[in-house]
Amino acid sequence: MQIAVLTFDGFNELDSFVAAAILNRLKGKGWAAHITSPEPEVTSMNGVSVRRQKPLEFAAEADAVLIGSGIRTRDFAADSALLARIRLDPARQLIGAQCSGTLLLAKLGLIGELPACTDLTTKPWVLEAGVRVIDAPFVAHGNVATAGGCLAAQYLASWMIARGASLRDAEEAMHYVAPVGEKSAYVERALAVVRPFLPGSESLAA
Amino acid sequence: MQIAVLTFDGFNELDSFVAAAILNRLKGKGWAAHITSPEPEVTSMNGVSVRRQKPLEFAAEADAVLIGSGIRTRDFAADSALLARIRLDPARQLIGAQCSGTLLLAKLGLIGELPACTDLTTKPWVLEAGVRVIDAPFVAHGNVATAGGCLAAQYLASWMIARGASLRDAEEAMHYVAPVGEKSAYVERALAVVRPFLPGSESLAA
Repeated sequence: MQIAVLTFDGFNELDSFVAAAILNRLKGKGWAAHITSPEPEVTSMNGVSVRRQKPLEFAAEADAVLIGSGIRTRDFAADSALLARIRLDPARQLIGAQCSGTLLLAKLGLIGELPACTDLTTKPWVLEAGVRVIDAPFVAHGNVATAGGCLAAQYLASWMIARGASLRDAEEAMHYVAPVGEKSAYVERALAVVRPFLPGSESLAA
Repeated sequence: MQIAVLTFDGFNELDSFVAAAILNRLKGKGWAAHITSPEPEVTSMNGVSVRRQKPLEFAAEADAVLIGSGIRTRDFAADSALLARIRLDPARQLIGAQCSGTLLLAKLGLIGELPACTDLTTKPWVLEAGVRVIDAPFVAHGNVATAGGCLAAQYLASWMIARGASLRDAEEAMHYVAPVGEKSAYVERALAVVRPFLPGSESLAA
């Protein structure tokens, strides 16, 4: 699985890096999560400059795409030239969005009438874009998932691993990154959050 | 509070960025966490190149220092020229180390006989360096704290905020980054982990 982690200027480090680092735990199985940006270098909301690993157009060819969050997302959501560079296909790709990334997903027409997650700061803008926001850390509808609250990035990553590899792989990745002495609790919570949204689960069918 | 987040080549993104992003929630109070590295650019264990915000020598003048983790820490722990560039003063500074960062802290002579935390991969090397490793996500002795497991970075940050600002500030920072719908649980757990190590607590006195 080649995964594009869309990372824009003013990005929130937690959203891009928590997901990418967990997904990269599957390196041994040929997975790679790439920081994917419109410009060769992007600077975070806290002034950290990062060199992109892939250009924005990589999103079209990736097996999975995660849209990160940041303090300038409202500007980007109004930038039709930028949005036109992001070509996603939910029939073929697993797609996730985090916090204000949900706003971009809505502008790309990938949310529609379905309920979505976002963070408390972005919530008014996402509502304004016509999205039904729910008070939950994570939700998925088929191949499209959204998460709210920086550290919910772990759920996006767990879901993507469970969908693209196996639940057992998601468990192992979460076990590795979880705090010592709290590993079982972390793994169990992550699996409980994503399991209802995996194929074959009753909730998914509902 | 000016905080140096020591970040070396091969660094684990979770360890450096989770802590830094949480600490930077206090920007409004004049706090700033800086990615602090020996070279102008460092590349993570997953190939992400980041421009440093401060040189390694900044650690000596910072109010607080966090030592991140990575896949090359064993090399750095054997590099006496590099270690000599890291001048820390636990009498004046709050100092924390995460996962393999605990090995560097031990080499810098700041752990001694006290029990410390680290991750499961680094544990054998830390034991080899003569450190007593405990099966816990976080421990602090006065101004020196250690954490084990990538996502335990949230506890290092919470402790540093509680020590340098207030418990209320730590609560607010954790509330912001926690997943939607799980905010109380995250805040309560973080406070429960760090509270025993704050001045005035009974455990600290013990």
